[in-house]
Amino acid sequence: MFLEHALINVTPGAESAFEADYAQAKTVLASSPGCLRIQLHRGVEHPSRYLLLVEWQTIDDHLVGFRQSASFAKWRALIGPHFDGTPEVDHYQPLSSMPPNDDSDS
Amino acid sequence: MFLEHALINVTPGAESAFEADYAQAKTVLASSPGCLRIQLHRGVEHPSRYLLLVEWQTIDDHLVGFRQSASFAKWRALIGPHFDGTPEVDHYQPLSSMPPNDDSDS
Repeated sequence: MFLEHALINVTPGAESAFEADYAQAKTVLASSPGCLRIQLHRGVEHPSRYLLLVEWQTIDDHLVGFRQSASFAKWRALIGPHFDGTPEVDHYQPLSSMPPNDDSDS
Repeated sequence: MFLEHALINVTPGAESAFEADYAQAKTVLASSPGCLRIQLHRGVEHPSRYLLLVEWQTIDDHLVGFRQSASFAKWRALIGPHFDGTPEVDHYQPLSSMPPNDDSDS
């Protein structure tokens, strides 16, 4: 499993519109092959910042399968207009978790 | 639930030592009241960068209960020597997740 980690800054004042459009956009993302789990969190200290965590079976499921698909264009068309700058995106691999029987443990 | 989001840069070359000491440190963190779940991930594009995600019942469980306890000093004494700079720490609140029956959905 690979974790896509994206920090998305949204134009201040556009948070509700972003969240409404995200609700539609996430169904596009969720239907992409290899997409296992999606979570969106909103910043406490920075309420215009969102943390998107997406679990992918492989990195290529994200970078090739999704990013190079028509679905990505749809996803970006829905939520991109609310972005304040380009999201910072990188990937992580799970090392350990607690409780130890957590399914992301490895 | 509040998510502590910490980006930890480790001194290049100290990754294995950090991971070994983290294995001990996480038991200290896990025993702190209100600590629900801990996950550590290692960067793919930046292998000296780690993403620590900690679910807390409340923000104060982290900032007061843990940060102002002797446990925090122990935690930092174990892993702090491997840090390359001060970790960036902030907090998020879950908005939505998919699959929709995910327990972090709200």
